[in-house]
Amino acid sequence: MNPNFESKLMTLLDDHRSEIIELRRYLHEHPEVSFHEKNTAAFIKDYYSNLDCKMRDCGDGYGIVVDINPDKPGKKLAWRADFDGLAIQEDNNLPFKSQNPGVMHACGHDGHTAYLLVLAKCLIELKDEINGSIRIIHQPAEEVAPGGALSMIKDGALDGVDDIYGIHVMSTMPTGTVQLHSGPTQTGRANFDLTFTGKGGHASMPQLSNDAIVAGSYFVTELQTIVSRRLNPFDVGSVTIGSFDGAGSYNAIKGQVKLKGDVRVMNEDTRKKIRQQIEQIVNGVDATFGVESKLDYDDNYPVLINDKKLTENAEKWIKESNIPEVTTVKDSGVVNASEDFAYFAQKKPGCFFYVGCQPADGGDYPHHSPSFMMDEDCLIICAKSAASVISHYFA
Amino acid sequence: MNPNFESKLMTLLDDHRSEIIELRRYLHEHPEVSFHEKNTAAFIKDYYSNLDCKMRDCGDGYGIVVDINPDKPGKKLAWRADFDGLAIQEDNNLPFKSQNPGVMHACGHDGHTAYLLVLAKCLIELKDEINGSIRIIHQPAEEVAPGGALSMIKDGALDGVDDIYGIHVMSTMPTGTVQLHSGPTQTGRANFDLTFTGKGGHASMPQLSNDAIVAGSYFVTELQTIVSRRLNPFDVGSVTIGSFDGAGSYNAIKGQVKLKGDVRVMNEDTRKKIRQQIEQIVNGVDATFGVESKLDYDDNYPVLINDKKLTENAEKWIKESNIPEVTTVKDSGVVNASEDFAYFAQKKPGCFFYVGCQPADGGDYPHHSPSFMMDEDCLIICAKSAASVISHYFA
Amino acid sequence: MNPNFESKLMTLLDDHRSEIIELRRYLHEHPEVSFHEKNTAAFIKDYYSNLDCKMRDCGDGYGIVVDINPDKPGKKLAWRADFDGLAIQEDNNLPFKSQNPGVMHACGHDGHTAYLLVLAKCLIELKDEINGSIRIIHQPAEEVAPGGALSMIKDGALDGVDDIYGIHVMSTMPTGTVQLHSGPTQTGRANFDLTFTGKGGHASMPQLSNDAIVAGSYFVTELQTIVSRRLNPFDVGSVTIGSFDGAGSYNAIKGQVKLKGDVRVMNEDTRKKIRQQIEQIVNGVDATFGVESKLDYDDNYPVLINDKKLTENAEKWIKESNIPEVTTVKDSGVVNASEDFAYFAQKKPGCFFYVGCQPADGGDYPHHSPSFMMDEDCLIICAKSAASVISHYFA
Amino acid sequence: MNPNFESKLMTLLDDHRSEIIELRRYLHEHPEVSFHEKNTAAFIKDYYSNLDCKMRDCGDGYGIVVDINPDKPGKKLAWRADFDGLAIQEDNNLPFKSQNPGVMHACGHDGHTAYLLVLAKCLIELKDEINGSIRIIHQPAEEVAPGGALSMIKDGALDGVDDIYGIHVMSTMPTGTVQLHSGPTQTGRANFDLTFTGKGGHASMPQLSNDAIVAGSYFVTELQTIVSRRLNPFDVGSVTIGSFDGAGSYNAIKGQVKLKGDVRVMNEDTRKKIRQQIEQIVNGVDATFGVESKLDYDDNYPVLINDKKLTENAEKWIKESNIPEVTTVKDSGVVNASEDFAYFAQKKPGCFFYVGCQPADGGDYPHHSPSFMMDEDCLIICAKSAASVISHYFA
Repeated sequence: MNPNFESKLMTLLDDHRSEIIELRRYLHEHPEVSFHEKNTAAFIKDYYSNLDCKMRDCGDGYGIVVDINPDKPGKKLAWRADFDGLAIQEDNNLPFKSQNPGVMHACGHDGHTAYLLVLAKCLIELKDEINGSIRIIHQPAEEVAPGGALSMIKDGALDGVDDIYGIHVMSTMPTGTVQLHSGPTQTGRANFDLTFTGKGGHASMPQLSNDAIVAGSYFVTELQTIVSRRLNPFDVGSVTIGSFDGAGSYNAIKGQVKLKGDVRVMNEDTRKKIRQQIEQIVNGVDATFGVESKLDYDDNYPVLINDKKLTENAEKWIKESNIPEVTTVKDSGVVNASEDFAYFAQKKPGCFFYVGCQPADGGDYPHHSPSFMMDEDCLIICAKSAASVISHYFA
Repeated sequence: MNPNFESKLMTLLDDHRSEIIELRRYLHEHPEVSFHEKNTAAFIKDYYSNLDCKMRDCGDGYGIVVDINPDKPGKKLAWRADFDGLAIQEDNNLPFKSQNPGVMHACGHDGHTAYLLVLAKCLIELKDEINGSIRIIHQPAEEVAPGGALSMIKDGALDGVDDIYGIHVMSTMPTGTVQLHSGPTQTGRANFDLTFTGKGGHASMPQLSNDAIVAGSYFVTELQTIVSRRLNPFDVGSVTIGSFDGAGSYNAIKGQVKLKGDVRVMNEDTRKKIRQQIEQIVNGVDATFGVESKLDYDDNYPVLINDKKLTENAEKWIKESNIPEVTTVKDSGVVNASEDFAYFAQKKPGCFFYVGCQPADGGDYPHHSPSFMMDEDCLIICAKSAASVISHYFA
Repeated sequence: MNPNFESKLMTLLDDHRSEIIELRRYLHEHPEVSFHEKNTAAFIKDYYSNLDCKMRDCGDGYGIVVDINPDKPGKKLAWRADFDGLAIQEDNNLPFKSQNPGVMHACGHDGHTAYLLVLAKCLIELKDEINGSIRIIHQPAEEVAPGGALSMIKDGALDGVDDIYGIHVMSTMPTGTVQLHSGPTQTGRANFDLTFTGKGGHASMPQLSNDAIVAGSYFVTELQTIVSRRLNPFDVGSVTIGSFDGAGSYNAIKGQVKLKGDVRVMNEDTRKKIRQQIEQIVNGVDATFGVESKLDYDDNYPVLINDKKLTENAEKWIKESNIPEVTTVKDSGVVNASEDFAYFAQKKPGCFFYVGCQPADGGDYPHHSPSFMMDEDCLIICAKSAASVISHYFA
Repeated sequence: MNPNFESKLMTLLDDHRSEIIELRRYLHEHPEVSFHEKNTAAFIKDYYSNLDCKMRDCGDGYGIVVDINPDKPGKKLAWRADFDGLAIQEDNNLPFKSQNPGVMHACGHDGHTAYLLVLAKCLIELKDEINGSIRIIHQPAEEVAPGGALSMIKDGALDGVDDIYGIHVMSTMPTGTVQLHSGPTQTGRANFDLTFTGKGGHASMPQLSNDAIVAGSYFVTELQTIVSRRLNPFDVGSVTIGSFDGAGSYNAIKGQVKLKGDVRVMNEDTRKKIRQQIEQIVNGVDATFGVESKLDYDDNYPVLINDKKLTENAEKWIKESNIPEVTTVKDSGVVNASEDFAYFAQKKPGCFFYVGCQPADGGDYPHHSPSFMMDEDCLIICAKSAASVISHYFA
């Protein structure tokens, strides 16, 4: 490979700085919620329409796969960005504020897509100098289970791929930092719906009813023993009842309550154990209170496990590239959230890493909040970090 | 008093049997919810418009007071019937089914009003033979706290009254029975609204949140100890959380839940004790879980206490009257429900008794259900039982 | 019957006032715990040894039955007193303080026996004037389940008996009062032993254990719902865990806990319901926590139900007798405690009533406490009240 | 340093193999519980009595410090072994079974002391070849808080010391393995005593009592929320109630319960958070149930944190030494238990590592159980591993 490839690519990216910002702002103004990203997908496809690459729809939703040097021998490296927004009403006063009421790019996927579009264009321009092929994966629906990754994988998104990378911007990390972690990196997740049905009646005659609020409340207290007593203290587990829907009136005993739950783990044994214990406790509540339960349990996003070699390489390479905008490259530690990039990393060696995007005032702009904001300087860092990894990968 | 007064009155009532039914059916077709009984009140007032009595509006709502022999010396006896409907969609196929969507006379107040209108008309016809005066109280808004009675009392509904009676039809008692109970007869009630505010957040980071569903659930379990441990087992008490509104999503920790509660007692000491214990436990939840609570507690309907003498008299007199439609006169025992007639009985010696209205098939037609139904034969029994009591009262 | 019988008997009792006190003090000095009243029984039998009556041992323990006019035609009335002490160390400074360490007549059974011995002697003296026969029942072991009554009944203690009475002195009632209540009067009782077995282990590795203290604690919280939610608020019920034995060390997870429970009810339906609900909750704890439970449930003393006629008669007769020491005869209301006289009252019409024994200072000398004390003036009231009833019974 | 020092030392140790075994067996036969190791300390001191070293008592208990080359310039390395037994009745049939009833070396401290005595003797023999000084620390009372280490440190046990090592034999690790872990390695611990005082009374009158078993049980359920909701799922925490002493009778409501608790953590922030949350919940129980609590909280053993350099060095050196009896040298991962070596490692760079001692049958011989057993082959491995580290340390 041309030893000047990396510097050519970096120069090209520098030339397209403002285009990345423009793309990101356009996407920010036009967010679409998961599984409904029709216009976003059309926009992406239009971007590639005149570029020398092979593009196809992929998966049940609006997924797009773009191959650069599709038939060239050598290794095939995949790079993934997601493009769905969230059902949140934006609370920022920006010239490019979301124009879609109740929908917002509040997690930074607009940025992910913007940098990757420009990076892809630059790579296509230099494609003859690349000793292999690159697969760009534009994934929809990262935010909502079952996620967009699974059906893209089923539809061949990883076929022939050797390794895969992805980046997430992080408003909790200072802009200028690139952070990576090897091994288990983000939690796996399960969700469940649970209904307890007793028998409604009048509050003055509890003996004729079976109070579902009481059964549900004892359930919540018993559920605490899963993390507190049934797991190894050295294991990671979290069980949340995020919804307890027992709305009713003062003087009627509630005959039914509906709960929603969330489970987080860092290994699959813990996942199995928690599920089994939830089932056990649900059965116990039925036995104790004489209610009937219905449990719909969905094991969704896996634990995200970063490949050791890919992660060490990325860290080493990005350091070596001495990207001027990057001040620090370091271990991120584990991250509490879940991410369906984990499905890709189950199938192929993968590495998902973080680029700080905290605004310069150092304030708190949490992901998934109506006031989420990014320092757009992060976008060139995303592009150049990826450029560094890709250049070394094919060197 | 004319020794033939009672038989004249009974004969008059027999002559108006079909009118009672017609009035009841008209009211049944046109129910109005508590505090909004504008048309029902107008209908009642229209009924009296040509009768020789003194009528006035009374209280904050649509209450009406009708005096028969207003200025006559002697005792003044009050007789009360309520006329509000419930926010329930009727589920019966009757020719006179409710025509107001979502509103229904599902507790029998249509019948109460019908028998009392006709009884009043007959009493007015015979008023010169009555050695005293009779106050007819048409009360709105019995079903919803604070109830219609309180503001009528403030507005003089009981001024000059010596004693007061009222009747409730009961679909749980066989038609043909008249049932009475001396002393504490129906439960007193309190209701409360309770909010626990913790701190919302992401399910993967419980340490940054304060889970209000968890606090609320432990509260519900602790609340059970009021009845189970803090009351005398010989006292009557019931505490229900009828509403636990903690609806949310899978993966967000709920920062706030809203509860509604109902309390039933049979004496005022227990009422005070339960309130004090609820306040104590609410404070305890704040201390234990670091949440902030807001408790709005409303002591509403008192324990309904029937005067011993009035009750014994009514039982004796109704038996003596040998009303042909009445098969049984007996002790009803206590009744779980609450009733704002209790406010009248706090101010004056009162007696509230029951007339069975169970349909002939012996089926289950519960009050406050969409399928509530009465055997209309109960209505003449209501009228004649009242006639018996009034005749003896002034004898 | 001789119309002067009653006054003769009263005079005789007056003559033996001091003997009653002496007997009571002797018994007080020599208490014996339930099922071990060997010397007390010998003392009683010795008392009768020279009297003209028919005496026999009765039941598995130290029960004694004494018949006066055993073969005389007419009605046969039984009168019962109990004679066991309690495993309590007396804390009073009395000249006749208990001489048996750790044992005390802390419930007044010494007084019961004393008045009945003297009454029996007087009745024997006047036996020819009695138109029937009287059975004196000296019952041991009232304080400890299964009680002394059951085996005496099996051994014929009630054979041929028409009716039975008994008296309890009450330090919570003023001396001078005689109190009676018709119908359900004292609670029925059940007791249970319950073991939860999980798996012990080291506190640093909860996942390898199954914490029985946690299972037992959740059980206690769930148990509260029996009284609070599963019973009719108008019914009486109480469920207590009186013993939670989970003593262990800091750093070992407890593999087993042992609980003892107590249940009180006022009717047999509630008894059955509570037992069934306890069994249900115990099974629920097994299911929820994966522990193994062992429940030994003992339904012991029945609800004590006083016969209406016997009770009304006693009240009327005692009033009519104008006993000078009696200031008040009235309804006692219900009493929380349980009493194995209930077994006698299940078999024959029975009436168990109360004679106030509160010391003159009006202080608090609770039964079953080390400082229990009686005003000995109660004893002549016991004797004369019984004399009144017996005189009228056979009149 | 003499390049042949290590091989000389290893040869010397081989020559004393049987002495190590004999010493260990003698100690095993004569175990003494923590803080009462009088004879063991005398035995140790006697061993050194004729050796060329400087020995002194150290700390409040039976601690002994032995200096080899006390005044020699250069580095000073400490090596620690503990020598207390446990209050456990041995259940093994060994020729050298414990002769002290109810006391047993069930954790392997006999072996620790045996290998270190012999190693010290060998080091003393070669002391002139050592370029520095070695401090042998014989520590009593490791098993029971506050432990023996603290008072030895206060008494100068670490004065002048540069670094400290210690070894624990582990029956859960195969004999032949040496295992080490850098950073936080064993849990820190706290213990607490907690009393809840309500008010005792009779089970039939709960309203007059305040049931401490109920308060204590709700406390246990609330306590579960510390680990389940109040900690970061990525942090390690465990809270156990190891003792719930509420033993009583069936029919008395318990007025007081006494609990003992155990807390485990892997960092000091978590320690503080758990303590603060326990205090909060205890206060909450007081507020909720109106009981009075008394909490005695003892933060004892710190998290054991192994120094990175010392641990890496030990691993490297032991590997380099190619000790014939050692099959594997590897990362042990974290260990759940706590260890008061942690106090030494707080003051000076320290490393505490593990030598497998699982008997050859591969069976389960858990520490702190009556059937604990070690494969005595582990003892020469302890001695030689230490010899390797010491040799390299001074090389």
